[in-house]
Amino acid sequence: MSAGNVVALAGGVGGAKLALGLALALPPERLTVVVNVGDDFEHHGLYICPDLDTVMYTLAGLADPVKGWGIAGDTNAALQMLGRYGAETWFALGDQDLATHLVRTSALRAGARLTEVVGRMCRALGVAPRVLPVTDDRVATMVDTVGEGALSFQEYFVRRRWEPVVAGLRYEGAAAAALTPEVSAALDAAALVVFCPSNPVLSIDPMLAVDGLRARLAGVQARRVAVSPIVGGAALKGPAAKLMAEMGMEVSPVGVAAHYKDLLDGFVLDVRDAGLEPRVRALGMATLVTDTVMNARADRRRLAETILDWSKTL
Amino acid sequence: MSAGNVVALAGGVGGAKLALGLALALPPERLTVVVNVGDDFEHHGLYICPDLDTVMYTLAGLADPVKGWGIAGDTNAALQMLGRYGAETWFALGDQDLATHLVRTSALRAGARLTEVVGRMCRALGVAPRVLPVTDDRVATMVDTVGEGALSFQEYFVRRRWEPVVAGLRYEGAAAAALTPEVSAALDAAALVVFCPSNPVLSIDPMLAVDGLRARLAGVQARRVAVSPIVGGAALKGPAAKLMAEMGMEVSPVGVAAHYKDLLDGFVLDVRDAGLEPRVRALGMATLVTDTVMNARADRRRLAETILDWSKTL
Repeated sequence: MSAGNVVALAGGVGGAKLALGLALALPPERLTVVVNVGDDFEHHGLYICPDLDTVMYTLAGLADPVKGWGIAGDTNAALQMLGRYGAETWFALGDQDLATHLVRTSALRAGARLTEVVGRMCRALGVAPRVLPVTDDRVATMVDTVGEGALSFQEYFVRRRWEPVVAGLRYEGAAAAALTPEVSAALDAAALVVFCPSNPVLSIDPMLAVDGLRARLAGVQARRVAVSPIVGGAALKGPAAKLMAEMGMEVSPVGVAAHYKDLLDGFVLDVRDAGLEPRVRALGMATLVTDTVMNARADRRRLAETILDWSKTL
Repeated sequence: MSAGNVVALAGGVGGAKLALGLALALPPERLTVVVNVGDDFEHHGLYICPDLDTVMYTLAGLADPVKGWGIAGDTNAALQMLGRYGAETWFALGDQDLATHLVRTSALRAGARLTEVVGRMCRALGVAPRVLPVTDDRVATMVDTVGEGALSFQEYFVRRRWEPVVAGLRYEGAAAAALTPEVSAALDAAALVVFCPSNPVLSIDPMLAVDGLRARLAGVQARRVAVSPIVGGAALKGPAAKLMAEMGMEVSPVGVAAHYKDLLDGFVLDVRDAGLEPRVRALGMATLVTDTVMNARADRRRLAETILDWSKTL
């Protein structure tokens, strides 16, 4: 275990924000961001990795600051033309963004591993920390809904705007998927693992379901901390609160902490939820209460530095 | 043979211009445009059909009026981003244009015939005449060069800007490629076949090389006329003159007419080449001398109407 290496587990926009904070707070060689691939899907013949792209664009300083995903200032001429052909347009594909999907899809078809492709693209965009898909194998988050049957993740999340009530989630392929050697080595070398404030069941669980990751995290030498994506009883972004309620989880930092129970040494709650700190502690974790809402770039760095300082006390 | 149906054989920009003229001059049900596929290639995982697109965009009124190919006003955000990733950018891919390639590539991968895909896209863009690839099979024009070996067509034409000296051309796959039933039926029903002013060796020959087409045209009941792409000893656009010289052909309407010798009833030369009319007649063809330069939309219709009127006298 080299001194001070950090592995961040990240999914969507919230995860990318804290990953950027860690990138601003750490020398790049000390940070590895491990990213969910359960959202990945094929669309218009392109292999699209929304979470990897959100992390990559965010770390490259390209992400749209309002939406949190996609490229700032990107246009949608191709998407409009797709509509003219009667093709599906429910998934936003920016014009610059299309280049990402074209490069990735071509490289994968040519036999490259996703890890290699993401590495090349990150280098081209000047992203210094390592960004790693949790696996090079296919994992597909499937959403069993009440009334609409099983939906693929993007059908649920984008096309149906997370409106259907969720009866259950499955991470198809996860049990047979292998952690990459790069992720495995990063975990071996880590002093700290940070579960970013990502959706626990949509962003983190598909990673934990990859063969061996949950066991690795349960037994790893590194300290392990998570940041609550739930603040004041609501998700800062996206369907986390709605989904946790539908899955029978308590919609609070306590619900998130309980979900990760055997995997964590510490848990970070927002100041707005300070009253819940004793209940998180009762789960056997150390706690940090701080402002976790990352609106500005400076907020991200500050939260990352606060977590890094605190984690040394664990 | 139904009365008055026209089949136009078209390649690049010049072919598309006369195809538009014919579309303006004829009821749509009387016109079928049969298009070269020898330029088609895969690039960034996309199946790209430059000649089909040029014809489709031109007939749809979308073509860039200056370049003659691509979509007017199209942007190139994706191409710029491809460059940022270090990917190849020598082939222009407009953002709207990318939608065409995505729709076509997806449909072909799903098992559709190219003929069907082109038909669907043309309907979506409001193109009323039939636009047909000469074959649904793969034909790849290969350029044997002096000093640079064999180049694929787009490598020669776009990446190397038709600078290498050409030693020979091959139409790979053509002998084994089948005319589509749609092209075959259009020829059966045609009263007139028009060889558009396209490059004889790059645009028309790859079609004639498709199994059976040359023999069909040699024996067809329809009258057959060609329009010279060479005016005043030069090509109106592109490498036709340079290439004909390198192939040992006379760079004049006579050289073009001689190249199509056994396939034509009539030949159209530009007024600037009126002095060559006797030499074309000596090849056993009727001749029409007229202004063949199609700068404006009205020029295209006028040339088409002139040819249609004259062809009735053959």
